Amino acid sequence: MTLARDVTTRVAELRRHIAALYGDLGRRGLVTWATGNASARVPDADLLVITPLGINPDDITPEGTVVADLHGNVMDAELPPSSDVESHAYVYRHMHQANGIVHTHSTYATAWAVRNESVPCVLTMMANEFGGEIPVGPFSLIGDDSVGRQIVEVLSTHRSPAVLMRNHGVYAIGATPRDAARVAVMCEEAARTVHISRQLGEPVEISRLLVNALHAHHRDISGQPPLPPPTRR
Amino acid sequence: MTLARDVTTRVAELRRHIAALYGDLGRRGLVTWATGNASARVPDADLLVITPLGINPDDITPEGTVVADLHGNVMDAELPPSSDVESHAYVYRHMHQANGIVHTHSTYATAWAVRNESVPCVLTMMANEFGGEIPVGPFSLIGDDSVGRQIVEVLSTHRSPAVLMRNHGVYAIGATPRDAARVAVMCEEAARTVHISRQLGEPVEISRLLVNALHAHHRDISGQPPLPPPTRR
Amino acid sequence: MTLARDVTTRVAELRRHIAALYGDLGRRGLVTWATGNASARVPDADLLVITPLGINPDDITPEGTVVADLHGNVMDAELPPSSDVESHAYVYRHMHQANGIVHTHSTYATAWAVRNESVPCVLTMMANEFGGEIPVGPFSLIGDDSVGRQIVEVLSTHRSPAVLMRNHGVYAIGATPRDAARVAVMCEEAARTVHISRQLGEPVEISRLLVNALHAHHRDISGQPPLPPPTRR
Amino acid sequence: MTLARDVTTRVAELRRHIAALYGDLGRRGLVTWATGNASARVPDADLLVITPLGINPDDITPEGTVVADLHGNVMDAELPPSSDVESHAYVYRHMHQANGIVHTHSTYATAWAVRNESVPCVLTMMANEFGGEIPVGPFSLIGDDSVGRQIVEVLSTHRSPAVLMRNHGVYAIGATPRDAARVAVMCEEAARTVHISRQLGEPVEISRLLVNALHAHHRDISGQPPLPPPTRR
Repeated sequence: MTLARDVTTRVAELRRHIAALYGDLGRRGLVTWATGNASARVPDADLLVITPLGINPDDITPEGTVVADLHGNVMDAELPPSSDVESHAYVYRHMHQANGIVHTHSTYATAWAVRNESVPCVLTMMANEFGGEIPVGPFSLIGDDSVGRQIVEVLSTHRSPAVLMRNHGVYAIGATPRDAARVAVMCEEAARTVHISRQLGEPVEISRLLVNALHAHHRDISGQPPLPPPTRR
Repeated sequence: MTLARDVTTRVAELRRHIAALYGDLGRRGLVTWATGNASARVPDADLLVITPLGINPDDITPEGTVVADLHGNVMDAELPPSSDVESHAYVYRHMHQANGIVHTHSTYATAWAVRNESVPCVLTMMANEFGGEIPVGPFSLIGDDSVGRQIVEVLSTHRSPAVLMRNHGVYAIGATPRDAARVAVMCEEAARTVHISRQLGEPVEISRLLVNALHAHHRDISGQPPLPPPTRR
Repeated sequence: MTLARDVTTRVAELRRHIAALYGDLGRRGLVTWATGNASARVPDADLLVITPLGINPDDITPEGTVVADLHGNVMDAELPPSSDVESHAYVYRHMHQANGIVHTHSTYATAWAVRNESVPCVLTMMANEFGGEIPVGPFSLIGDDSVGRQIVEVLSTHRSPAVLMRNHGVYAIGATPRDAARVAVMCEEAARTVHISRQLGEPVEISRLLVNALHAHHRDISGQPPLPPPTRR
Repeated sequence: MTLARDVTTRVAELRRHIAALYGDLGRRGLVTWATGNASARVPDADLLVITPLGINPDDITPEGTVVADLHGNVMDAELPPSSDVESHAYVYRHMHQANGIVHTHSTYATAWAVRNESVPCVLTMMANEFGGEIPVGPFSLIGDDSVGRQIVEVLSTHRSPAVLMRNHGVYAIGATPRDAARVAVMCEEAARTVHISRQLGEPVEISRLLVNALHAHHRDISGQPPLPPPTRR
């Protein structure tokens, strides 16, 4: 692969960044053994950097990450890419606002996904971060871009930057890879707290009006623009 | 900001103290990503030191903390203050016995808050530390002093130095910032143990008389005077 | 306090040992903030070494531990003793086989205690270690030897070296302080596993005959004699 | 014991490997105190290396592991072997594809075992790794090869490389000791996620056809051949 010099520099930075971020997901208990992945879009290059197939967070290195194009074709790699590479590529092609994607099987979020239930917005933190419920998408086989198609389909009709995939786990997107990691962390935190609350009774709802007010205020003070609805190309 | 020399010294100490204390809340699992805050009153100065907006416990530094007056106006800062700064200021104005405040979304305490339920006093440890139930306060929007008003309102009619805010999280006060941190830790511990106990049946109550006896004995041996009821000014 | 030279040496060793063991209970998540204590009998000296009042596992030092006689009178200390010192002394006076005592508020064990329920013996590990159920004792006030009297009362009619005290927590005894710590750890492990099992149905019982066979085999291979029934003096 | 030089080298490597792997099971929270064990078959030597009796993961050393023949007779050891040594030997004699065995009492898996329930395959991760449910085997006494006989009996009729033993814990096998450790880790992850999902409703099933498709694809990309059914000798 021959790349312009500045692209080479950006790729090298993103390989270090994705390796560090994936290691952190392991330390936070969101990725057990090799059950997750993470990627970054390479700005202005129609490329992505993704974690390799079946790697433990403790074992990842920048050199082990994989560079692929936005159709999932490997461009530079010592190891095979995550089996989700085509799905990540599909999301980057169809959601211009997404520059990072994180996938985990974090326990509580996955527990909702196994029941095909979305997580209702009953926490001020959820109103802030997700602007409403965390939705659940349909069952998909793994290994082509099916998961990616479902991510785009579901997120195009929700404010939430995270989606639960039925019987499977969580996909989180962000304006940066670190934002995607934050979304994955907050998704598990929300799924866990609401689960535990519901174990002993019914959560009190937050009205749509108040959810909107909290979300708008949070976007305002955090300087994060709302993610625009995804566009196709 | 020009401060008397001894105030400057106290502020510098409190900035280090608050940064260390907030980092510890992260290591204890009480603050995930940037979902909490902590502050200290600066003695004899009508000032407070508070954590900045949206900071992870792993990333906080003394320099990143914010000095504000007791109406929430920023006096010295590199970063914007926690969005709770006006609420902390309100509490310090109205509760002279509070010299530290800690806010978390710790999981089990928040789970009770989401159901609008107070945690009943069924542990000797709760009798010791809280002198009765841990109460729950009403829903409040975030960003002005609304939360602070509710904290003062609820704590003025309870022995407990912690209050659960509905759909939101925990606010804990203390005679020192470290006391406030201890209260936040013990609040989560109590909320978790009582939750787990109730999952499989009904907790045995402790009579009011015995709660009073335990609380008085604990205050006696720990040298902590009971917090007087809050006074307005 | 003037002690024979060999007693002084043993006391110094036990102070280091108790400090290390209490720190370990904190790292294992069994003692949160200052909610536990640990002690050792000093062989051939009618003395005990105990953790001080209200100390966090992270903060304990050998110098901070307290030497007391077997009626709870402090003999050598920089800090006040645990408020359980008279209860530990009572146990050492009445159970000659106990040379270490550990007290925690570990979450799942305490959750059973709050419901006044013993933990049924439905794990091979419980048969091995406890020889049957982990019993629950009555409510006691804290600060004199009341808790100690209940520990001796309950353990005299059970094989278990651990007892849950109602609305309070766990007391574990051992032939050595490390044995008492192991018992406290295994008590929480058993309480947690059986709790989680019962959340979704009924545990299958292990017959008394099989419990006896497992317990006898475990005692045999581990070289631990069964604790004899306690004797009064 | 006199061994060919290359066997001696392999034994030394496996002793280090088993010690490291058992330590890791402790750090992951799968083995509390001394409640697990791990072993490796020594290739081309009718020998195995196993952890010693009653050892904590924090305390294990390569020198502390035990070399035994495939009937459980100790060949080289400073410490007595795990009380499961005859059962491990039985499995190695009857399942040629097993080169590593890991045993834990991991909490959620054991909770299913206490109810005599297998874990249903409702996660894509379970389809990948276990090819169906994780089965439960009957109650067995400990100390001879009874557990080993049950492991072989149950695994001979399931794709799963892990089996829950009633009222006891998990046994996991692998083509390598590290594979067995991964199976033990994924077994707890699956048991925990499905448990938590079932707490609030019914998991959605994955059809047998889709389980097969996921399992075949996973075997394909991970380069792991399916474990053949066990053969007797």
